[in-house]
Amino acid sequence: MEYIKDPMEIEKKSFEIITEELGEKTFPEREGKIIKRVIHTTADFQYGDITKINEYAIDSAIKALKEGCSIYTDTKMAMAGINKRVLKDLNSDIYCLVDDAEVSKEAKERGLTRSMVGMEKAVMDKRTKIFVIGNAPTALFQLCQFIDEGKVQPHLVVGVPVGFVGAKESKDELLKRKVPYITTVGRKGGSTVAAAIINALLYMTK
Amino acid sequence: MEYIKDPMEIEKKSFEIITEELGEKTFPEREGKIIKRVIHTTADFQYGDITKINEYAIDSAIKALKEGCSIYTDTKMAMAGINKRVLKDLNSDIYCLVDDAEVSKEAKERGLTRSMVGMEKAVMDKRTKIFVIGNAPTALFQLCQFIDEGKVQPHLVVGVPVGFVGAKESKDELLKRKVPYITTVGRKGGSTVAAAIINALLYMTK
Repeated sequence: MEYIKDPMEIEKKSFEIITEELGEKTFPEREGKIIKRVIHTTADFQYGDITKINEYAIDSAIKALKEGCSIYTDTKMAMAGINKRVLKDLNSDIYCLVDDAEVSKEAKERGLTRSMVGMEKAVMDKRTKIFVIGNAPTALFQLCQFIDEGKVQPHLVVGVPVGFVGAKESKDELLKRKVPYITTVGRKGGSTVAAAIINALLYMTK
Repeated sequence: MEYIKDPMEIEKKSFEIITEELGEKTFPEREGKIIKRVIHTTADFQYGDITKINEYAIDSAIKALKEGCSIYTDTKMAMAGINKRVLKDLNSDIYCLVDDAEVSKEAKERGLTRSMVGMEKAVMDKRTKIFVIGNAPTALFQLCQFIDEGKVQPHLVVGVPVGFVGAKESKDELLKRKVPYITTVGRKGGSTVAAAIINALLYMTK
């Protein structure tokens, strides 16, 4: 079995293949870096069509990351996939909304998802905030509501819940909000997609 | 914004939609539970066609899980996505091949991926082993080689690396091996897919 073993070479070659297969479908440079990293993570070229990055998103995110911010994820998977070394260099911190015993207890008592309860706690953080929601539509609905109520002004919302119940609808709500956002319209998305988007932004800070 | 908030209800409704949209495409009961959970995790019905479960895989995996085994993942993301509560009830343990300072150091020195070096360490474990490879083709190639050399006899290989360089080829190699395996042919797969497969098996032990 002969195969490429060097991780850097594998990544470089992968991005070349993606660019080649996208063919005439091109993106502005920074948007392209994000979308190609999502395709790299999923091997699914549909993300070239469904990924929506609004006009404020990239500048706002890079500013927040460079100045140091708090990143909140809805799952431990999304948190696990984000490059901690680069985050640390930037003096940014990352937290998972559901990874907290108190949150679990309260969610059970109130019959809510842990991510909804975690979201309530996150909005109290006074630092610049980026929200990364790859799994739970309930967390994204809740965040949209807090935005409407003026309780939180995120510097970026990566809203890419995946699934069949509420995922599409929660992203449709995000699209109506005047906040910096990156989303994937329809049912597709997920924790790996969410992490890939944040990693693409992290690499742009360099 | 009206939406379903109860996680159990969301999951139940999701599986109903998946079954409905699969239409005349049906699977044997246990295979169906795995494949539908992968579709649930990705919102990608293509997994109904590309997921391959060999005849020994489910029995072998359930036996290993019920008796207590070691699960090795190639990424922290896959590890993060696997249900630890059920694993603990079963007296099974989970380890990540790359999450080790010694492995990092050695990989750098030898110019290899961390997952390849981690794999070398995993095969020394004397317990019953399940390998879960959702990202790194190099780890799956290495595992195939160790199987050929008689260094390891996994009770299950979940081999679902994603990507453009080596992913498809590494899975083609796995398909030729006489070991219990679950794979997704072609480029698609990933850490969320890998975790979904193990979770589906964990829920079948009950």
